Amino acid sequence: MIQPIAFRDNTLRLLDQRLLPAHEEWLELAEPQQVIEAIRDLVVRGAPAIGVTAAYGLVLGAGQLPDSRPEFDEGFAELCARMAVARPTAVNLAWAVRRMRALVTATPEASVSGLRVMLLDEARAMQVADVEANRALGHHGAKLLGDEVTVLTHCNAGALATAGYGTALGVVRAAVELGKSVSVLADETRPYLQGARLTAWELHRDGIPCTVITDNMSGHMMQTGAVDAVVVGADRIAANGDVANKIGTYMVAVLAREHGIPFYVAAPTSTIDLELSTGDEIPIEERDGEEVLVIGEERMAPLGVSAAYPAFDITPARLVTAIITETGVAIAPYEESLRVRCAAATGG
Amino acid sequence: MIQPIAFRDNTLRLLDQRLLPAHEEWLELAEPQQVIEAIRDLVVRGAPAIGVTAAYGLVLGAGQLPDSRPEFDEGFAELCARMAVARPTAVNLAWAVRRMRALVTATPEASVSGLRVMLLDEARAMQVADVEANRALGHHGAKLLGDEVTVLTHCNAGALATAGYGTALGVVRAAVELGKSVSVLADETRPYLQGARLTAWELHRDGIPCTVITDNMSGHMMQTGAVDAVVVGADRIAANGDVANKIGTYMVAVLAREHGIPFYVAAPTSTIDLELSTGDEIPIEERDGEEVLVIGEERMAPLGVSAAYPAFDITPARLVTAIITETGVAIAPYEESLRVRCAAATGG
Repeated sequence: MIQPIAFRDNTLRLLDQRLLPAHEEWLELAEPQQVIEAIRDLVVRGAPAIGVTAAYGLVLGAGQLPDSRPEFDEGFAELCARMAVARPTAVNLAWAVRRMRALVTATPEASVSGLRVMLLDEARAMQVADVEANRALGHHGAKLLGDEVTVLTHCNAGALATAGYGTALGVVRAAVELGKSVSVLADETRPYLQGARLTAWELHRDGIPCTVITDNMSGHMMQTGAVDAVVVGADRIAANGDVANKIGTYMVAVLAREHGIPFYVAAPTSTIDLELSTGDEIPIEERDGEEVLVIGEERMAPLGVSAAYPAFDITPARLVTAIITETGVAIAPYEESLRVRCAAATGG
Repeated sequence: MIQPIAFRDNTLRLLDQRLLPAHEEWLELAEPQQVIEAIRDLVVRGAPAIGVTAAYGLVLGAGQLPDSRPEFDEGFAELCARMAVARPTAVNLAWAVRRMRALVTATPEASVSGLRVMLLDEARAMQVADVEANRALGHHGAKLLGDEVTVLTHCNAGALATAGYGTALGVVRAAVELGKSVSVLADETRPYLQGARLTAWELHRDGIPCTVITDNMSGHMMQTGAVDAVVVGADRIAANGDVANKIGTYMVAVLAREHGIPFYVAAPTSTIDLELSTGDEIPIEERDGEEVLVIGEERMAPLGVSAAYPAFDITPARLVTAIITETGVAIAPYEESLRVRCAAATGG
């Protein structure tokens, strides 16, 4: 199984997703600041993967802080604050940081060396739990698909976006495991091309049929009957079911509705932010427009022309057919169903 | 004024649009077969520009055919047949070839040397008429825009897609000439990036504000109120108002309707094919999927993964707010209004 995040010998190893599919290179990080930069610079992306990466980044930081509790606590709080804002949109980052921080604040009596062990255990537990959650949500989602389907997906919500197995692609993998015949239409997902580079790469490795299309083709594909279902991941889901995900997701959702095609969001409950009542409150990361204009070494537009780069958009809940979590499938009204799903995750 | 097509000294000069904006190079073509290849290989693109280019290609061919009428006629018919199928979707190509061919068949008494002069005159007349048509349709369309507007456009329906001035961008230019404050959001238009490369280039040259966005951002831009109107060109329009245009146009039309934003198509009457009752009859060019996967020198997806590349899509008439032609603006029901616009063009 592809796992883009590995931790051993006090070193965090990240598969450098910026270089895929041409090069399969692992970065070895020993400094928490390197982890913050790796998240910011898209070495690792995908909401669940960012969460687990951040947790290991805090483990690295904990190893370097002083051995006395007050100084440790102060330094750890400061590191948590910096780690939490490496990227703004995915809630899993804040969620993972909060979990790590809570461990420290909840055990004032523990020694720093004890804390270090607990923090590493916690990060490992998150990593394992993420894969398990993806397998579980994958199997819930797979039941929603027909026996012979073409699934359109946007961006990469796969093994590479998580600790492994994937969310949207977890649904695809689980359907294949159930013996269904699934082929995937992968939006290339400009500007970062996660679909062409990452989704195609991991599906090809698993032998799952995948055809890449440019982002402007999904409407035509739906219009000509080539799409049976849309499954995407999420970076943050508000309490009312509004979904923040990679820029372009909203368009796909509008088009799916126009053509009567189900639009599914696959995400672990850690992606659900019950504290936000609607998607209007989700901060949208604005990245540098040059990332749109420069492909490889070449600048596509003439100098003097600028580009916009909102990295995410909000799909309103009314366009979402169902939200697939590890504890089951939520449908509208989401205010209620998402709370039930989240409560089930915490054993509540 | 940017004019991508020039003919002098029995040589057709084409601005090589594949190299823009990095390089401004002109190809000099003396052989009709080179012209066919230039059309097929996208040196020149855009329905009206293809039509004028094909006409000059036939002029080049006429210069090389035998001086006796029967042999000339046979060779010219054969060349016309090859030229007409250089690309399948744009109707202006067939329209221009038919006009040139009609000149020959209608004047059986003319000498071959006389025909050569007549054919050159006809091609020049088409070129001049195309610019005039674009100015006229531009001014009809400009009246539909507010005084301070952001226009979203897809692909390049500008000076580079025509003999000059442009269709969709002709509307923008005319609005600017009327003193309106216009800024343009240019879909980059994968895979060929006509928006980032060509639309941005020619608007920047004219000092008209232009921001490039990836194709998956237009929904978000409309959702956040950043778009006042959509104006696109067309490659072929059926009698019922269905519009074939660059892949992705259909998606933009669905999104415009979703947000109550007017969706205008700007095209000369030569783009209207009254012989096709609906868009279902318009052939959609399927290009090589490798054109999607390879950007610059680099292949974006792993080897073994394929891509689809339908080059055009069909926007149903119900999504089209108005079709702007050189003889005036057509609105639904298009069966009637398009006939009136075409009749006005031929003085009928």
